[in-house]
Formats: sequence, C-alpha cells, structure tokens
Amino acid sequence: MTAQEKLTKKNYEQKVICVGLDSDLTKIPPHLQSSTNPVFEFNKAIIESTSEFAAAYKINFAFYEKDGTKGFEVIEKTISLIPDDLLIIADAKRGDIGNTSKMYASSIYDYFKFDAVTIHPYMGFDSVSPFLEKKGKINFVLALTSNESAKDFEKLKLEDGSFLFQEVIRKVNEWNNNKNCGIVFGATQIEELSENIDLFDNLPVLLPGIGVQGGNIEEIIKVFKANNRLNLLINSSRGIIYKDKSDKFAESAKREVIRLNEVVKNILKL
Amino acid sequence: MTAQEKLTKKNYEQKVICVGLDSDLTKIPPHLQSSTNPVFEFNKAIIESTSEFAAAYKINFAFYEKDGTKGFEVIEKTISLIPDDLLIIADAKRGDIGNTSKMYASSIYDYFKFDAVTIHPYMGFDSVSPFLEKKGKINFVLALTSNESAKDFEKLKLEDGSFLFQEVIRKVNEWNNNKNCGIVFGATQIEELSENIDLFDNLPVLLPGIGVQGGNIEEIIKVFKANNRLNLLINSSRGIIYKDKSDKFAESAKREVIRLNEVVKNILKL
Repeated sequence: MTAQEKLTKKNYEQKVICVGLDSDLTKIPPHLQSSTNPVFEFNKAIIESTSEFAAAYKINFAFYEKDGTKGFEVIEKTISLIPDDLLIIADAKRGDIGNTSKMYASSIYDYFKFDAVTIHPYMGFDSVSPFLEKKGKINFVLALTSNESAKDFEKLKLEDGSFLFQEVIRKVNEWNNNKNCGIVFGATQIEELSENIDLFDNLPVLLPGIGVQGGNIEEIIKVFKANNRLNLLINSSRGIIYKDKSDKFAESAKREVIRLNEVVKNILKL
Repeated sequence: MTAQEKLTKKNYEQKVICVGLDSDLTKIPPHLQSSTNPVFEFNKAIIESTSEFAAAYKINFAFYEKDGTKGFEVIEKTISLIPDDLLIIADAKRGDIGNTSKMYASSIYDYFKFDAVTIHPYMGFDSVSPFLEKKGKINFVLALTSNESAKDFEKLKLEDGSFLFQEVIRKVNEWNNNKNCGIVFGATQIEELSENIDLFDNLPVLLPGIGVQGGNIEEIIKVFKANNRLNLLINSSRGIIYKDKSDKFAESAKREVIRLNEVVKNILKL
C-alpha cells in the first residue's frame, strides 16, 4: 500500500491519531529502566497496546540521536514492530542542497523504509526534490508549526501581503506532481487553520501540538469537517506515551488513544 | 579552547579552508573498497593528509545516515581522528520545537562532542535556543544558501522591502548573547555577500559552495578583505576529497588544500 492509501484507509475508519514516539529514557517507567534496552521495550509495549486504535506512528529522531549509534539501532528495531497497515513517519525535519538531500532521502526511505518524513522548506525546491522523487510516500513539508516562535519567520508578511507559511503551502502544491506531498500545520494554530484550509487543496496534513502544547482536537476536527475534508493526522506524543508513568503506562496509552478516537467520532457524527 | 578561539587562531594563520567530509562509498578509490570500513579508512587518510593545512572539518550527516547505524558509528570514529585544535562542524541542519531541539543539541554537543553545528532557522527562536545555551560552540544558522532554489524562500521580499535571509541575519545577531552564533552564507552568492557583509556584524561565517557548485574563493576573500574582517570558513567537499580518485587521493587532497591556502594568502598580502 502507498502511504496515501494507508492514510485514506485509516481516515475512512475515522482514525486520525498519530502516536508520537518521543521516547525518553529519563521519563519511562522505573520497572523498565533495568532492561537491556529500556527505550525499545517501552516502544514495544506502547505499539502492542495502541496499534489497533492508532492511524500512524511518528518517530522523533532527536530522541534517538541523543543516544548516538545505539539510538539509531532503536529506531530500526522499533520500525520492525509496527504493523504494515499503519503509516510510519520519520519526524526528522531534514533539508539540504540537492546532492545532500538525496542522501537523507535514501536514509529515510531506502535504509529505514519509512512511509513518510517531515522536511524543512527553507532552502527551496531543490532541497526537497530528492524526497519528491520517491513515489508512494508522503513528504510533510513544514508550513506553520505549533511553537510560539513560529511568528519569527513563518508568520512574516511578504511584499504581496501574504505570510511566508502561505507561500510555502502554495509552493508545496506546485511541487505535488507525484501526489506525495503533505504539510505540517501546528494544532495550536486553530485560527490560521480555519483561515487557510482552502489553500491546502488535497494535501494530507500532519498536525502536531495537541496535549502538552495546548492544541485542541475538537476544534481541529470541526474545522476539517466544516470544510468537508478528512485527510489528516493529529499527533500526540507526551499526552499519550506519558499519560501514566506507572507499570500500567501501555494500558493508559491505549485508553487515551481510544478516548481521542471517541472525541473525533462524536464530532464527525454530529 | 572554545570553538571561536579555534577559528580565530586558524584565521590568524590565514587558514580558512574547511574540508567537507561528504564521504560516499560509491566514490571512494577502488583499493579502499575491500577494507572492512572503507568510508572510515577514506576519512582517516584524508584527515592525516590535510589536518596540518585545514582550518576545520565538516561532517555532512546525510552521507553517514544513509548507512543507518553503521554510518553513525563512522561519524563517532571519524571525530576521534581530528586533532584538537581544528574545529569540527556537524553539518546536520537540524531544527525543531524547543523540547525536541534540546535533544538534537544534546546529540551534537554532549554525545558526539562537536564544536559547531548547522541549523535551520524556519521555526524561529525557540527552535534554536537549546543550541544557544551551549557556550563555547558555534551555531551556524542558515541565512542564504548556495543552491539555486535559495530564491524560492530565502530571497523572498518582505513587507518592509528586505529579503527573508536578511531578517534571519538580523535575528541571529539578536540571539547572540552567548557569542556562539554564526551564519551559513553560500559561496555562490558573491553579489549578495558583498552587499550584506555589513549586516553580519562579528558573526563567524561558514561559506559552502566553492568547487563543484561554482563559488569562487578569490572573490570571497576579496570581499572579506575589503571589509577588514576575517572570521570565516570556506568549505570545499567534493573539490578536495575527490580531487583525484586514484590511490594518491590523500596526497592530492593535501595539495588542493595547500593550493587554496596559497590563493587566500596571495590575496591577503596584496
């Protein structure tokens, strides 16, 4: 299945939750700390418990890279646990000149075999194009992010009166010849979501920032519903995987995904 | 020594060349291909041959990540070969929300122990700030890059008539409380370099893009000299490490660094 087919199938089942595996040794339950590979064991328990209810998993590279070589090993082993029908996103936020981006695309898609990636737009088309050559994937380009400092550059006004992030979305639509582009749009930016959703065209949208960062899942689903579209993933990381820090963490993570699914379903059926 | 002290010392000796270790298994000489770790052996030969003449080394993460876990191991082993008085730059182009960037900064500075890193500005201050907390380092923020598509966003005109990359440089100067910021400015953008060097203030500048990409080292040094400053690194990767693909590659790389140093010295003494 292509990445878009996986997403469409899950969205059709009204599943939109992406479980963010921001797994941090210092935050995982004490009883796992003594195992030989605590982060992997943690991910394994989370995946086994939530995969029936989630739409996707997002592996946040930073949390693994901080452990160097060993962290990269955990990424590889974690991917192998995720069932085939779930989208696996490399949240790596890569982007470089063409010659170099080609290597990053090879790392993400040929070596690790992810379904999707997050990419920085700053360096423009040729920095993204090696990813766009990989058909059947979803390349989520950062448009408007969930953090406070999104205002520093992303919300700068251009000469023509539009914002930088709007120009990024326009360009991503131009680049979408292989139907493998998407955008990242912060779940905390609800007003901008509502005002700009028309610009998205058919691009799938990854929305991080609910839970700890303050984004509201109900408001997001209402905006998508009001615009008759459902081609999205809402990511929650800390809100799911650290919902409970006892030895019942995996069960609590599952209950949280089920709860979020119910919130979504209740709005969609209105 | 802090990263800035290392750079200042090398620049004082009129050394500005950064050797880019974009080491690619498919491009290294045939006689190394049969060794157990060809990329590492290649880097070792290049470093042993050039370290007396170079100012810095830049490790381009993409070329290692494409080999996954093994690639990360080669990064670690390569760093251990580089003499202490040379700056080691992680050309990783990272950048994410604060909570995540903290992990990237930890990977680059605590785990690998690099002196410097390259960073994407798109997500604004809080995405950069965990790097800025690390004193004695140099955080090179992308301003204007060497690639053709730099025009897509970096050269967009803002409401106030300035270009996006100029606003990035202004912000980086604001963020420089710990005197550990720098910028990346493409060696191919010679006209913009000349027009904007006043904006740089005292920020150290990393200039990639001479050699294969077409940037001209003489023109760059002339601009810096005309402005009475010398706080820079000019990177060449393919132009040095693949200068010669025979078993004399390391000797040829050395001769190329020496030749570039002569070009620099000849302009500085005028």
